[in-house]
Amino acid sequence: MQYLPNDPVRLTDDKTAILAIDQRALPSETKYLELRNAAAVAEAIRTLAVRGAPCIGICAAYGVYVAACAHMQEEKNTFSAHLDADAAVIASARPTAVNLSWAVNRMLQCKGRHLAESPAEITEALRTEAETIHAEDIDMCRRIAENGLRLLPEGSRVITHCNAGALATSRYGTGLGPLLLGAERGMTFHAFVDETRPLLQGARLTAYELHRAGIDTTLMCDNMASYLMAQGGITACMVGCDRVAANGDTANKIGTSGLAVLAQHYGVPFYVFCPSPTIDRSCKTGADIRIEQREGDEITHLHFAKPVAPAGIRCLNPAFDITPASLITAIITETGILYPPFAF
Amino acid sequence: MQYLPNDPVRLTDDKTAILAIDQRALPSETKYLELRNAAAVAEAIRTLAVRGAPCIGICAAYGVYVAACAHMQEEKNTFSAHLDADAAVIASARPTAVNLSWAVNRMLQCKGRHLAESPAEITEALRTEAETIHAEDIDMCRRIAENGLRLLPEGSRVITHCNAGALATSRYGTGLGPLLLGAERGMTFHAFVDETRPLLQGARLTAYELHRAGIDTTLMCDNMASYLMAQGGITACMVGCDRVAANGDTANKIGTSGLAVLAQHYGVPFYVFCPSPTIDRSCKTGADIRIEQREGDEITHLHFAKPVAPAGIRCLNPAFDITPASLITAIITETGILYPPFAF
Repeated sequence: MQYLPNDPVRLTDDKTAILAIDQRALPSETKYLELRNAAAVAEAIRTLAVRGAPCIGICAAYGVYVAACAHMQEEKNTFSAHLDADAAVIASARPTAVNLSWAVNRMLQCKGRHLAESPAEITEALRTEAETIHAEDIDMCRRIAENGLRLLPEGSRVITHCNAGALATSRYGTGLGPLLLGAERGMTFHAFVDETRPLLQGARLTAYELHRAGIDTTLMCDNMASYLMAQGGITACMVGCDRVAANGDTANKIGTSGLAVLAQHYGVPFYVFCPSPTIDRSCKTGADIRIEQREGDEITHLHFAKPVAPAGIRCLNPAFDITPASLITAIITETGILYPPFAF
Repeated sequence: MQYLPNDPVRLTDDKTAILAIDQRALPSETKYLELRNAAAVAEAIRTLAVRGAPCIGICAAYGVYVAACAHMQEEKNTFSAHLDADAAVIASARPTAVNLSWAVNRMLQCKGRHLAESPAEITEALRTEAETIHAEDIDMCRRIAENGLRLLPEGSRVITHCNAGALATSRYGTGLGPLLLGAERGMTFHAFVDETRPLLQGARLTAYELHRAGIDTTLMCDNMASYLMAQGGITACMVGCDRVAANGDTANKIGTSGLAVLAQHYGVPFYVFCPSPTIDRSCKTGADIRIEQREGDEITHLHFAKPVAPAGIRCLNPAFDITPASLITAIITETGILYPPFAF
């Protein structure tokens, strides 16, 4: 994997801070952020400097650890209370991706298991737990990629939406994993990348990752997928996910459900790539998943350019949508390829 | 109609040039172009300074007239040959909207009827013909708006794509006509406007027109229509068109066919608004309609901002797509509301 030097989120060499690629600056610049406390971690997640459900989970886990570092000199009860408060700050940064609360809860459970120890020992245990979460994600992505690759014959032509590659996860990614793994093995694919308005993760991140990985890549606007599918010859749509309900309903980047409707209409398989921490059994269906609504200036002010819409116009800007299980051909996890009916 | 001072394309007061709103600069600036010859007219159409199928037709008609003005002092055979060459330049500016070749052909037929006369008299006849085309468009738009309004009850919530308002036509527009006419009569509607990537005609033009006309307007990205329809409560989708085949297959701004698939999936009526010059009986089906492919920098360089995609990335950038007649609930023309099966 030559196209990115490092994981998008990792600890600094001295293990006192998170070093995160600022994904807002790509592809023009590769900038790094050093995150040293919970507020900085939450801000990085809220502003999408760090994004992608699995990557958010990893960052949150390291975030609880660096918060512990910041409070390590405190008396244990104070340390514990401050850590709980910081964990809550991190967990509330964004509502839709379940990986965020999943990772924070797992870190708090780890703290609970070590409560008899000193703040320094608890902090050390938290670092190990965060590194474990990170290592597990790398392993899950690899296995998801292997499973997904069974669905992609040589020469496949695939439509992707948003970014579910290495920047969203660790190493292989989820939705892009089969393409990246297959390319490593010398297979050839053609990827059609939705630009993914309003924040252009497809244009800025997915096109960047696939292009650098040597995969034949074509960028298009979100509204061109119907045109492309109508021409025929598309093998599959492949997307990641932010939260999957017990019945398979899937929250993912806004536009995913529309792509799934098109795929069904044109007879194209629609695959969701999902590490198991992204499954939320506490949500029975998609109706239980809260969709984040973001500010309209993401639409009206294109990526820091001058306004492209009239002043004062109201905007609809949901960050995600729900793709009903009925539109999903298969969900690929680290354990295998699951077909409907889904029951997690 | 307070929201625009004048038609988007008209003659200057001295009748020697076309005065056209430069639609690329809206909504930030209201700039005008003076077009004095065929090359300038073709360039304005090619670059989308003048856009919208009916408006392109009007501009092309006036374009043949100003070309005649430019050659009026020439000997008649030279005048005639230059005028034919200029008409060909204008007709080839863009391939998809049939109104362009329709208007140019009508102007050439007018020239043919007056060939016995002097260049000055032919030029005068061409001005009258162009003004007639313009006046007919105003009348057709008004009648289309009246017909379409029968489909829109008070309080309707409507999704639009691209721009089919006054800027695309004259006065009421086609797809936006019922909203604008109804609003004049005190009806209230809620319009949801697709921004329409890559050139953002929805965000820049439709949101501007509807907002200024006092209609409750929400701007959204193209990929949000599925989310919105899934919530329920959408009365209809309403779009214009660039060319309608004899069987009802409709070429319109890229993204229209995807919106039509979504509308069918969610049970939302899908209405195409079509002045009769936009019907091309020489195309049996949509497969006969040529789709313009435009440069990728419209996608990679957002409206003159810095690049948002990696350098060298290939882009797919069809300007239009074909919506099959099977996805169209009704086609509204100046003569009435037509339901399937369509046979023009």
